[in-house]
Amino acid sequence: MDNEIIQEQMLRLFTEKVFLEMGCSKTHAELASDVLIQADLRGVDSHGVARLVGYVRLWENGRINTQPHIKIIHETPSTAVVDGDAGLGLVVAPIAMEWALEKAEKVGTGWIAIKNSNHFGIAAYHAMKALGRDMMGWAMTNASALVAPTFSKQRMLGTNPIAFAAPAGEEEDFVLDMATTTAANGKLEIASRQNRPIPEGWAISKEGVSSLSANILKEGGMLLPLGSDLAHGSHKGYGLGAMVDILSGVLSGAAFSKWVPPFPAYVPLPTNAPGEGLGHFLGAMRVDAFQKAETFKSQMDIWMKSMKDAARIDEQQSVLIHGELERMSTVLRKKEGIPVHISVWNQLIELDQKFKINILQDA
Amino acid sequence: MDNEIIQEQMLRLFTEKVFLEMGCSKTHAELASDVLIQADLRGVDSHGVARLVGYVRLWENGRINTQPHIKIIHETPSTAVVDGDAGLGLVVAPIAMEWALEKAEKVGTGWIAIKNSNHFGIAAYHAMKALGRDMMGWAMTNASALVAPTFSKQRMLGTNPIAFAAPAGEEEDFVLDMATTTAANGKLEIASRQNRPIPEGWAISKEGVSSLSANILKEGGMLLPLGSDLAHGSHKGYGLGAMVDILSGVLSGAAFSKWVPPFPAYVPLPTNAPGEGLGHFLGAMRVDAFQKAETFKSQMDIWMKSMKDAARIDEQQSVLIHGELERMSTVLRKKEGIPVHISVWNQLIELDQKFKINILQDA
Repeated sequence: MDNEIIQEQMLRLFTEKVFLEMGCSKTHAELASDVLIQADLRGVDSHGVARLVGYVRLWENGRINTQPHIKIIHETPSTAVVDGDAGLGLVVAPIAMEWALEKAEKVGTGWIAIKNSNHFGIAAYHAMKALGRDMMGWAMTNASALVAPTFSKQRMLGTNPIAFAAPAGEEEDFVLDMATTTAANGKLEIASRQNRPIPEGWAISKEGVSSLSANILKEGGMLLPLGSDLAHGSHKGYGLGAMVDILSGVLSGAAFSKWVPPFPAYVPLPTNAPGEGLGHFLGAMRVDAFQKAETFKSQMDIWMKSMKDAARIDEQQSVLIHGELERMSTVLRKKEGIPVHISVWNQLIELDQKFKINILQDA
Repeated sequence: MDNEIIQEQMLRLFTEKVFLEMGCSKTHAELASDVLIQADLRGVDSHGVARLVGYVRLWENGRINTQPHIKIIHETPSTAVVDGDAGLGLVVAPIAMEWALEKAEKVGTGWIAIKNSNHFGIAAYHAMKALGRDMMGWAMTNASALVAPTFSKQRMLGTNPIAFAAPAGEEEDFVLDMATTTAANGKLEIASRQNRPIPEGWAISKEGVSSLSANILKEGGMLLPLGSDLAHGSHKGYGLGAMVDILSGVLSGAAFSKWVPPFPAYVPLPTNAPGEGLGHFLGAMRVDAFQKAETFKSQMDIWMKSMKDAARIDEQQSVLIHGELERMSTVLRKKEGIPVHISVWNQLIELDQKFKINILQDA
């Protein structure tokens, strides 16, 4: 069997305890574990508890401050820059998003650039915080360099995701969360585990040559920007990744481009970084700063119904709305439990023993 | 010879006179022609004077109001919704962008959703208005449906571009302007003129089958979202196009999705549209609402220099920054004139005679 099936509550409790052991406050531990558990519920397995041991190692390496003083260092009515004080991005980003929402309450929109943070989990989590308040949410982050710009064979940008969430009425909310690369790192890992080649257009070797090897990143290769090659618009994916880096990194005072701190603690920090830590960019827009929330949401219903009714290429495969698969996964996994890959499970068991939490072995 | 070479001043004068003949005020005619001429200068030939006859035909069809009362119908300190009163998008968008910039002056950022407009030319024009004021600019627009979402064989979204502009210091500004499709319509037109097939991944037939025909759109085919197919991330391009449609159309009260009015005047208007006209979404963010403008711009210089210095795959081909090619084109065409394709030139000559402007024949 490849997976252990764990109930949400148990996984959440365990994850909270790990963050507490790292020195987080109860509030911060709950926040951080909620971000990871929501990723697992949504089926984004690469960004859930699979990352937990990675955060622990960063903390052990002194790269994460688990008792950060997160603060606004500059602001206007609709903007702020936040210093994350080297905290967990899983904590810094939700707190900063709350400030974005407060600004939007007052002046229509709120935009926060964040420096000196760390990996913030799934971008969708932060953007979705807006939904319950009849707002639209944005979330972006830079990440350590793994992507070659068009014409280059050097890692210059991260997978730099963009998330955008907008509420609907009777239909489900629209939730886009996309890396600005053709394929996310996790897809190469899956292919590697299954011993399969990857499609052309996902990655190049360190010499800049197209590669079908799922292990090419371990050999110094690079991911390709969304679009894959020039003829298919790789300059657009590169441009989106650049935009995310400018907003998250340059604008906030964080490191950017090839200087963004890596997630694996064993990879040395880039030297001479032009800024501090990882950077995020978050936004909130009150729907009724534009039009009545009820009108907008019923128009969103029309938009969604018409998209779902669009003519299908294969009658068996409906047109999907962004966020739909993740919502289905959440319903299923809340009921039936979260499948945790055995390699991840073994890491969790190690943490369980290391921190003497002792709740997983019998689970 | 395929092209006539026309000096910027002459082309600008002629274009202004055409808009004046359509009933525009002097101010509006100057604005509208500036948007078109800047497209031609930047080398975006598909969106410059090549479109002029199209605007004339829309006006002749009663679809464009050349004396619009453009007004804010709802606002907060950082947002507004604008009714374009069926005006030229070339006029409505620059006026609305000015309001976005004013809001940003006051509260840090300004965001304007616009309904009841028409085609606004190149998105970059509007985003770039922010640059001279040490701001970042955003521009998006929906457009008539030509793109099939992933899994569909129906035209449900336009090429829905995203533009983002950010100022640099000694380096040139960053200006991204991208359709959210793999290839823009204009690229198929060029292939068609040259009697060449198009690459796989640009378009599908009306049956939903991959097509290499440059004329496939005339046969009911569709453009593909950035990413081309599911394995290469077409759901991401589809998601970006959807986001642009939601912000430009649903949020503003404009038509959206398959109901967006077509640019060619001979194509009937979609019936039962859930909103009015085309929609745009514009934004302005004051750099110093986040950090000192001088600091940001010198950090942008570092970002750009490092990107330009990235290792090249082909030593002869440098890594490009978004906006670089368009800037080079502008310098060249300001000096040497604008090449106008002979088929476009013939349309301009017809307009010259039709409106008795009589300045092109001897040019």
